[in-house]
Amino acid sequence: MGSVHKKLQVLLVGSGGIGTMVAYALEKGGKAEVAAVLRSNFEAVFDNGFTIHSVDHGEIKDWQPTSILDSIPSVNKESWRAAYDYVIVTTKNAPDIPPSLPDLIAPAITPGHTAIVLIQNGLNIERPFFSAFPTNTILSGITFMGAIESPPGTINHHNHDRTFIGAFHNPAAGLPQKAFATALALHLMDAYSACGPNVDCTYEPDVPYSRWRKLLYNASYNGVAAILGMDTSRMRFSEHIIDDLIRPLMQEIRATAKAAAGVELEEELIEKIITADGYDKCFKPSMLQDVEKGKFIEFENLVGEPLREAERVGVKTPTLKVVYGLLKGLQFKAKERHLKEVVVPRNGEGLKYGGCVRS
Amino acid sequence: MGSVHKKLQVLLVGSGGIGTMVAYALEKGGKAEVAAVLRSNFEAVFDNGFTIHSVDHGEIKDWQPTSILDSIPSVNKESWRAAYDYVIVTTKNAPDIPPSLPDLIAPAITPGHTAIVLIQNGLNIERPFFSAFPTNTILSGITFMGAIESPPGTINHHNHDRTFIGAFHNPAAGLPQKAFATALALHLMDAYSACGPNVDCTYEPDVPYSRWRKLLYNASYNGVAAILGMDTSRMRFSEHIIDDLIRPLMQEIRATAKAAAGVELEEELIEKIITADGYDKCFKPSMLQDVEKGKFIEFENLVGEPLREAERVGVKTPTLKVVYGLLKGLQFKAKERHLKEVVVPRNGEGLKYGGCVRS
Repeated sequence: MGSVHKKLQVLLVGSGGIGTMVAYALEKGGKAEVAAVLRSNFEAVFDNGFTIHSVDHGEIKDWQPTSILDSIPSVNKESWRAAYDYVIVTTKNAPDIPPSLPDLIAPAITPGHTAIVLIQNGLNIERPFFSAFPTNTILSGITFMGAIESPPGTINHHNHDRTFIGAFHNPAAGLPQKAFATALALHLMDAYSACGPNVDCTYEPDVPYSRWRKLLYNASYNGVAAILGMDTSRMRFSEHIIDDLIRPLMQEIRATAKAAAGVELEEELIEKIITADGYDKCFKPSMLQDVEKGKFIEFENLVGEPLREAERVGVKTPTLKVVYGLLKGLQFKAKERHLKEVVVPRNGEGLKYGGCVRS
Repeated sequence: MGSVHKKLQVLLVGSGGIGTMVAYALEKGGKAEVAAVLRSNFEAVFDNGFTIHSVDHGEIKDWQPTSILDSIPSVNKESWRAAYDYVIVTTKNAPDIPPSLPDLIAPAITPGHTAIVLIQNGLNIERPFFSAFPTNTILSGITFMGAIESPPGTINHHNHDRTFIGAFHNPAAGLPQKAFATALALHLMDAYSACGPNVDCTYEPDVPYSRWRKLLYNASYNGVAAILGMDTSRMRFSEHIIDDLIRPLMQEIRATAKAAAGVELEEELIEKIITADGYDKCFKPSMLQDVEKGKFIEFENLVGEPLREAERVGVKTPTLKVVYGLLKGLQFKAKERHLKEVVVPRNGEGLKYGGCVRS
């Protein structure tokens, strides 16, 4: 690694539910020191630490990682002694909402050294990082844990931590880079797994497969739930929402995965994922939760990217296309709520579809 | 008409905003007597009459039609002397929500005599009436007036009354029936127009054209507005909602109209209707208003029927199909709110997609 630290030096960006549990596992394993960047929860955690109710680790009071920061630190880019070995990003990924994540974390990245770990959903999330940090390794994290922060500083970790770490392979780089990226992924997995048998952190050798596989759910249930404001049990009870929307979306993702990425998603995955959520849970997927809270949704990498891949290779994805258009409409509403500049002017003069302005 | 009444005897079913203004125009013209069936507003109107703020007729206090009823009357079917000449239906049309409109009005229909006038949106709305009342004439009413009742008994008539009356032609009937239906449409138009120049009631010779034309708006803006919870000005400001959803929907309707009904909707109608609403009005189409009030939406005749027509003749309508599926999902939510029996069971046993029930 070129680092003189005995423990891995980790910067965590996004210390909400998922991020805090990742930090906790790494610190508990004893092989890493985590500096966590906190925002809305900084004061609460500064005063009282995190309160954690964890399905894997039990009840934890007043916990803090090695250090907490209230903004992204700027490292001395000339000195590897000051470098972070890993910057782990567990924020939501909404590339259509500035600032961009690469811009945000840039001050903390040491060229040629820091590995950037994206524990985030969606397709092609690594691309802007490859562009912004061409000498750094980008790793993929896919987690199936469930953890929510509410109120600030209190984490309810309700679903077992199963996390898969692998390497995004930069198409612009050669085999040595691939081997190095794999080694960095294994190294992080080792530090994570040192936490003990309560968490399952696994090396993921086939990142494209696992990301496309997760899209089967995220481009279907997650998107439609956000649009309809409906949990997955209600969709299943209605039957027609599965038959008319969810299954066609999954089939379109499956066809696109094969044509655009050579990823073979098994046919039987579709029926399996349709009934994957506990029926009795009335589960609300992440984008629906965000809509209900008036937050931005991360639809571009969950729905937009597979749609663009489909269009690139000429796969017909009519359902995905409409769902994408509607999610973009929902994001428009969220933007209007958050950002004053997009508030719809009452006078449509000069707009493409302004027209017909009556007094 | 076979009637001995000097004035046309009209029964109005649906005395909300639109219906009450229709009744007012007919009564004011002096050629018709209206009996209006009231429901939620019966007591208010019984006590104080209607209060009307009308863009066409001015301020009106304590107005009542010739008679008000609190339920559909049963007529003596053997006697044409007791018959209604016209039963005008101005309720919302949600054929997926019982009771059906033909069942509802059946007691008031005299076979071979009463003309049934459907002042309602959508395609193929006449079909269940042709089946239920094979010896009666079914007329089409399309209105562009805007009138809303709030609170009960108070009508805000804010948009000029332009109403088109024509005949639905029963494919099972011959030319004499067509001529008779046309005569009944003209007769009603005459009674309506007797109100004076403040209202525009026009005979519509080409009902299929006018209904498909109105679908250009109702299957696009109306449906998408309901799904997104967004007014038409915001859609236009976003641009992409027009480009990705509204225009494709209009194009699909146009292709279906031609293939399924031989109706030629002019290409330029599309851009015209895109900017038809006053931009400054931030107009909320009817289904969005219904969604916001938690009411049922009339999506089956606005979106479902054109979709079924497209499927019948093999026109590809991928956007319409997804919008239909989502609207059906919204209706599912409204049904759950209104009708206890569809509340989603927490235990999915025995359901098609129940599965994966965990304790």
